[in-house]
Amino acid sequence: MPHTSREFERELSTLRERLLAMGGRAEQAIIRAMDSILRRDDALAARVIDEDMRIDQDEIEIDELALLVLAKRQPVASDLRFVMLALKIVTDLERIADLAVNIAKRGRDLQESSPSGSLPELRELGGRVQQALRQALDAFVNADAVTAENVIRDDTEIDHLNAQLIEGLLSPEHPDRGDHARLLAISSISRYLERVGDHATNIAEMVIYYVRGRDVRHHQERLGTPRS
Amino acid sequence: MPHTSREFERELSTLRERLLAMGGRAEQAIIRAMDSILRRDDALAARVIDEDMRIDQDEIEIDELALLVLAKRQPVASDLRFVMLALKIVTDLERIADLAVNIAKRGRDLQESSPSGSLPELRELGGRVQQALRQALDAFVNADAVTAENVIRDDTEIDHLNAQLIEGLLSPEHPDRGDHARLLAISSISRYLERVGDHATNIAEMVIYYVRGRDVRHHQERLGTPRS
Repeated sequence: MPHTSREFERELSTLRERLLAMGGRAEQAIIRAMDSILRRDDALAARVIDEDMRIDQDEIEIDELALLVLAKRQPVASDLRFVMLALKIVTDLERIADLAVNIAKRGRDLQESSPSGSLPELRELGGRVQQALRQALDAFVNADAVTAENVIRDDTEIDHLNAQLIEGLLSPEHPDRGDHARLLAISSISRYLERVGDHATNIAEMVIYYVRGRDVRHHQERLGTPRS
Repeated sequence: MPHTSREFERELSTLRERLLAMGGRAEQAIIRAMDSILRRDDALAARVIDEDMRIDQDEIEIDELALLVLAKRQPVASDLRFVMLALKIVTDLERIADLAVNIAKRGRDLQESSPSGSLPELRELGGRVQQALRQALDAFVNADAVTAENVIRDDTEIDHLNAQLIEGLLSPEHPDRGDHARLLAISSISRYLERVGDHATNIAEMVIYYVRGRDVRHHQERLGTPRS
């Protein structure tokens, strides 16, 4: 039935476009949340928080669309893997957007004190995380397993930068020593960024699964530390 | 076709049993990881780390089983929602087990210094998180939306305990002040526990979705802070 098949193709491509749009929104949320901190821009932070509702709605609608495709069609092989990819990465994208909200909120706490230590490190970590997320989304768009592998590899560096940053906060030499609220906010933001990196890794792993048809999710973990 | 239908029922019940077994393993991993810290039991920590591979395997196999059911059958309505529940919560369970590994590893760092501050708070937080996870799994077993709602409500308290604990670590009055490695380990463990609580909340939300057939995932977030 060529007609049904065309309809099915259209549904899959809608699913793909919806995921891409959601991915773009989640990426923008992280970029804006970090900008709100580094530029001390409260209005931008408020915008990240406001726009999260749209991404929550994306998650619900994309899940519904994926279920509809599963219920109406009987996708097999790579089409079935694609619907599974959608169901899995939509969760990661929604959590990335939640983390952007958390970053923006904690960033507001930072604006109340004068900027001193740890901001360059936070900027570097934020840049790495944004790059990982961008690469994970590119890997999805282009069904590119090689780029996805880079994301997984780079996550170790993100984990390392986060650990270094937290260690710096606990040091007696830290310039903000004694300003608990500030240290707490920076440590939270660093951890949130590290978690965004984890979600980018999850997306990359699912892309590899989709492209190659085999599950790579736990191969690198046997060699290194588990993602979380 | 009563035969096919019976087979389908069997597949769904296998899926359910596999999820339950995996949930039990993830729960045990958290309990053991916390015990390894509180009893300073290095062998128990090693066991948590070793057994994570089994839970990684669970994730891959349950995903495959769910895909097989989707490909062979055309589940609709509550059966389809159940398969979706499986695909979603398997991810949460696997990450809970990863967090247990992280907790066990950081707990080893604690064993090298003499125990002093923050352990009672860590014990309390761990207890709350274990309870949340137990309740989320009970809610899944019994398809009990009321218990699931309790899990979601209690997560605020877990977030609060974690924030309090981290704040205590940054205080100049903390008994381990100056012992960076120890403060860093405790702060990591506290955050990992808080994330286990988030995953319990995710499971609870999916159970409500399965039971009631409607999506509650973002309702409470409009009132409070987003989960992450």
